[in-house]
Amino acid sequence: MRIGVLTAGGDCPGLNAVIRSVVHRAVVDHGDEVIGFEDGFKGLLEGRYRKLDINAVSGILARGGTVLGSSRLERGRLRDACANAEQLRRELGLDALIPIGGEGTLTAANMLSEAGIPVVGVPKTIDNDISATDRTFGFDTAVMVATEAIDRLKTTAESHQRVMVVEVMGRHAGWIALESGMAGGAHGICIPERPFRVDRLCDMVEERFARGKKFAVICVAEGARPAEGSMPYEKGEIDQYGHERFAGIGYRLAGELEKRLGKEARPVILGHVQRGGVPTAYDRVLATRFGWHAVEAAHRGDFGMMTSLRGTDIVMVPLADATAELNRVPQNRMEETEAVF
Amino acid sequence: MRIGVLTAGGDCPGLNAVIRSVVHRAVVDHGDEVIGFEDGFKGLLEGRYRKLDINAVSGILARGGTVLGSSRLERGRLRDACANAEQLRRELGLDALIPIGGEGTLTAANMLSEAGIPVVGVPKTIDNDISATDRTFGFDTAVMVATEAIDRLKTTAESHQRVMVVEVMGRHAGWIALESGMAGGAHGICIPERPFRVDRLCDMVEERFARGKKFAVICVAEGARPAEGSMPYEKGEIDQYGHERFAGIGYRLAGELEKRLGKEARPVILGHVQRGGVPTAYDRVLATRFGWHAVEAAHRGDFGMMTSLRGTDIVMVPLADATAELNRVPQNRMEETEAVF
Amino acid sequence: MRIGVLTAGGDCPGLNAVIRSVVHRAVVDHGDEVIGFEDGFKGLLEGRYRKLDINAVSGILARGGTVLGSSRLERGRLRDACANAEQLRRELGLDALIPIGGEGTLTAANMLSEAGIPVVGVPKTIDNDISATDRTFGFDTAVMVATEAIDRLKTTAESHQRVMVVEVMGRHAGWIALESGMAGGAHGICIPERPFRVDRLCDMVEERFARGKKFAVICVAEGARPAEGSMPYEKGEIDQYGHERFAGIGYRLAGELEKRLGKEARPVILGHVQRGGVPTAYDRVLATRFGWHAVEAAHRGDFGMMTSLRGTDIVMVPLADATAELNRVPQNRMEETEAVF
Amino acid sequence: MRIGVLTAGGDCPGLNAVIRSVVHRAVVDHGDEVIGFEDGFKGLLEGRYRKLDINAVSGILARGGTVLGSSRLERGRLRDACANAEQLRRELGLDALIPIGGEGTLTAANMLSEAGIPVVGVPKTIDNDISATDRTFGFDTAVMVATEAIDRLKTTAESHQRVMVVEVMGRHAGWIALESGMAGGAHGICIPERPFRVDRLCDMVEERFARGKKFAVICVAEGARPAEGSMPYEKGEIDQYGHERFAGIGYRLAGELEKRLGKEARPVILGHVQRGGVPTAYDRVLATRFGWHAVEAAHRGDFGMMTSLRGTDIVMVPLADATAELNRVPQNRMEETEAVF
Repeated sequence: MRIGVLTAGGDCPGLNAVIRSVVHRAVVDHGDEVIGFEDGFKGLLEGRYRKLDINAVSGILARGGTVLGSSRLERGRLRDACANAEQLRRELGLDALIPIGGEGTLTAANMLSEAGIPVVGVPKTIDNDISATDRTFGFDTAVMVATEAIDRLKTTAESHQRVMVVEVMGRHAGWIALESGMAGGAHGICIPERPFRVDRLCDMVEERFARGKKFAVICVAEGARPAEGSMPYEKGEIDQYGHERFAGIGYRLAGELEKRLGKEARPVILGHVQRGGVPTAYDRVLATRFGWHAVEAAHRGDFGMMTSLRGTDIVMVPLADATAELNRVPQNRMEETEAVF
Repeated sequence: MRIGVLTAGGDCPGLNAVIRSVVHRAVVDHGDEVIGFEDGFKGLLEGRYRKLDINAVSGILARGGTVLGSSRLERGRLRDACANAEQLRRELGLDALIPIGGEGTLTAANMLSEAGIPVVGVPKTIDNDISATDRTFGFDTAVMVATEAIDRLKTTAESHQRVMVVEVMGRHAGWIALESGMAGGAHGICIPERPFRVDRLCDMVEERFARGKKFAVICVAEGARPAEGSMPYEKGEIDQYGHERFAGIGYRLAGELEKRLGKEARPVILGHVQRGGVPTAYDRVLATRFGWHAVEAAHRGDFGMMTSLRGTDIVMVPLADATAELNRVPQNRMEETEAVF
Repeated sequence: MRIGVLTAGGDCPGLNAVIRSVVHRAVVDHGDEVIGFEDGFKGLLEGRYRKLDINAVSGILARGGTVLGSSRLERGRLRDACANAEQLRRELGLDALIPIGGEGTLTAANMLSEAGIPVVGVPKTIDNDISATDRTFGFDTAVMVATEAIDRLKTTAESHQRVMVVEVMGRHAGWIALESGMAGGAHGICIPERPFRVDRLCDMVEERFARGKKFAVICVAEGARPAEGSMPYEKGEIDQYGHERFAGIGYRLAGELEKRLGKEARPVILGHVQRGGVPTAYDRVLATRFGWHAVEAAHRGDFGMMTSLRGTDIVMVPLADATAELNRVPQNRMEETEAVF
Repeated sequence: MRIGVLTAGGDCPGLNAVIRSVVHRAVVDHGDEVIGFEDGFKGLLEGRYRKLDINAVSGILARGGTVLGSSRLERGRLRDACANAEQLRRELGLDALIPIGGEGTLTAANMLSEAGIPVVGVPKTIDNDISATDRTFGFDTAVMVATEAIDRLKTTAESHQRVMVVEVMGRHAGWIALESGMAGGAHGICIPERPFRVDRLCDMVEERFARGKKFAVICVAEGARPAEGSMPYEKGEIDQYGHERFAGIGYRLAGELEKRLGKEARPVILGHVQRGGVPTAYDRVLATRFGWHAVEAAHRGDFGMMTSLRGTDIVMVPLADATAELNRVPQNRMEETEAVF
């Protein structure tokens, strides 16, 4: 069997672990041939690939990023590819294609699948915003990085009687803010799923200072927005999901809090450190299992599907399900902590 | 409502996060009174406790160990307590008791529950050996510590063309060995669920050296045992589960490999570092959610139950289920990696 | 002997280790009394302090921040204090005062010393900008945090063929940028001591891309500034040292590089995470030694001095020396790496 | 110029950073040729080497171990090499040889130097036992790993009212035990330089329990030994320095303490995790500077010397000085903490 693998979209700790696992299972156990396309779908369309044997994946398990490179693809080229899917498949001699990516990648994967390419998808997103799987790899690492930052910020906030506002990733889903906020013991958590009220955040801070806890840490997702009328706010550009693009909410909120509270408030924008570097053990295990099961699915002819974590099992679910809707923080999860504003 | 909380059995990263969460939810949100018994069930039986308010749990979220202390309890005293359960409950004025512990603790909790104490259990075990929940807190931290050790050992093994045998926790269940072995990319994994064959381990090492990878790391659970006839082995004492007690398998295996292979083999016994210290973000979140849901269960009168992770949800399951059988590594999980011997 | 201790200025990992060490050495070994002033010099002037015994410093060795709190002091109040130094000393019954702080704190300490207070200073600064000591505690931790961030950013930069600009602390001295840049293998390092030329940075990036290394990481100190005429730049406010205040150089530089290179360039501003949290082992040892030697100096009557690391020894140097000039990166240190632009 | 580089002796975090730095400075800045000998002096004597260009050292800065491999050399072969030094040098076309290693390696390097090979040594030892330099790289990483272990063990010791005995590296010098013990706040520290008295350790533990601190952590160097008559002790084999070989002192001491105190005492032997894996920022900077200065020394013709840290400067010292005597913990350093027994 000849299996192609590619990584597309934003990078994510654990991508290399999937690639390695695919090669270990396919080449070593099944005697397959594995080729890796360079720079995501671009490499597929341009026929740029290299053979991946066991030496090619030696030492990459714990490495961040992706040894195959990644890129974004224009919709137009993708449509062309779908129109010529059978020819593409034949020319490359592909018996299976394993694209590893997020919402956009899986949508593209589904299109290619429906056009006749034998696809087994592997979901990845540090934001944890893909439904149809309990979790994706990369998320645990992002939460750990954000949590360690909150741990550090707490001590400096306390020493200086400050409010620290830490902005974490999450444009459409607040999972990183929710879980790192809970893990770090943030006193306020602001997520895209619930517009926050600045007056209530101020009350919380005042109440803390009043009872002698003279500091506060607020964890805000980059996609969180103030409730209407809650604070002066000019909207940014609107994206394809009808959501607003990145708008420096951490800076704005810290500024507003400082003004209202008359106390020092400092923003920290974690940014790209959340998506690079050594993956956690959890993410490495999940990524490795996804890779293994993707190869098994290919051998069973289970195409048009993607790997998915359900409880403790890896199961296959239709690619279409993965992209039907975003996995956003539900009401009952917000209520599990008093910190979501 | 007056809620008692206690921690029993071996310590586990995340215990303090549960205690803190119980206090936050019960005291702050519900206006309950929370008392913490000292040194596990001993404190309960001896009436040794202290009131826990929000200041008492300040700063403990990320701290290892347990601020309440822990201990083991003799069966005899437990039986006495059960016989006088109602009186005990009345004297302490307990409306609910939240014991946090592993298999032994939950068994005791179930006995007290059947004797009339209103109990809501919270499972903990770094070994992940409690069935009736997908995972317990503490396990992720143990796996991370073991994985970081394997990461470090790999580079030293490679530089010196050595075999490193790293022994991790897990007497009856091989989860820590399986997951840290997978995450660290160990070349061999030995778990209690499958007696290992030394000759096959030797073959694997020889094959690696033959193709130029002149080192190997083997991750062995403390409860792993050689297949019969596979290596000279004298059994240790047998415990209550019919399993053999700790027998220094890491040392024995390294010695045997060195003898058979004629190559340097070194044992590293990780020991107690796996169960102490700062919990991972994952464990802090899970522990915090368990604490929250335990309080909610108490308010609903959902007694004789324990908190349990099912997929992404926390649900309540009967205490009796938790202790019916150990959660051991099933066949299909072993097959997801070529490294289990 | 009655010894007062206080922490002033920006917080710094290791402050608590000094406090603990002072108490251990003074109270346990010498039988002294130690009092801790709250919120820096403010607590001293207002007589706000608490007794510190061995229990008061239990568990704080590895904790970030300062259990005594910190604050900035107006010059006016300090001058008043100097005028009434003897009275202040007598009222508080101080036989020695150990202020722990940076350049500003040590200047104040020197003034108090000259006014008659028996002072032994302990230097701290994450920036490493105090001369008269080889190193200060806090710096190693800041470098480690910055290095870990660069490690993570490298993999994401590489996967996406990006330039990452990471801004680290250091207003007047570039030590953190220099050492974390060297440790993380940054391709460009910009420090206040040498105005950087944007065209040379661009050449370096182009050269890397040309030979197939399609990413770059540039580490820039917050106080670094472009060489005159090198890039459009509007000066910020000028501070007491004749230096320019924080001006978001990371953002500006990333924007300029993106414009000139036509490649994605992303800024990451590490900010306060560099100064909070658990200190490294190095910083804990240095802080502990400083505390010990400060007490010994007090017992010898070695006042008007501060602790200082010289090679592997702790020696006492005049407070006046510490603040005579900033410790900035000298020419020969810049030349030890090709990365300083 | 044609420069050879090799790594010999036990591995040590930072070796790859030196190799990379040598290549960067020599190849990129000076236009030199650099060759790397495989498996230490063996590769030199057998002419096994590979050319090292900038791509060969890409990505190795933060990697543990050594990409060149290492080995021990028999004295006989070394003597032969010295006898034919000039021929060896000519055949390999070596203008300079940079061996990176510990006490044994530097002794060999000195012999080769005296026999006419143009040698610039670079010292490495995780034990910090080389005199003639303030510190060596590798040591800081080992101390950090040991300190993190002590941090973790403290919480588990406290929860279970136990004595934990953690054995760290250091056969002839107690630096790792001293500094990790100080950084981790160990209550007892035992080092080779001062035979410890078990009765005094017991007194310390009893005193702690008596005042309510019902746990203790003792950090013991592998080379620490009980004072004569202090505890039953059978000597192990004697090595070339007249010192006793590894004898499981951690196990023995824990056993003895448990017996005498009637309290649980548990040993943890950290072993090889201390010498593998990602180096700290400190070690990466020091290693990088050593590599840079070694190349400069070669270009100056400064042979028979090794790089050395003096305060904040790197200076060259005669190889002979490095091996004249071991750098052991002096009396005044032991006295800086009450914990050395």
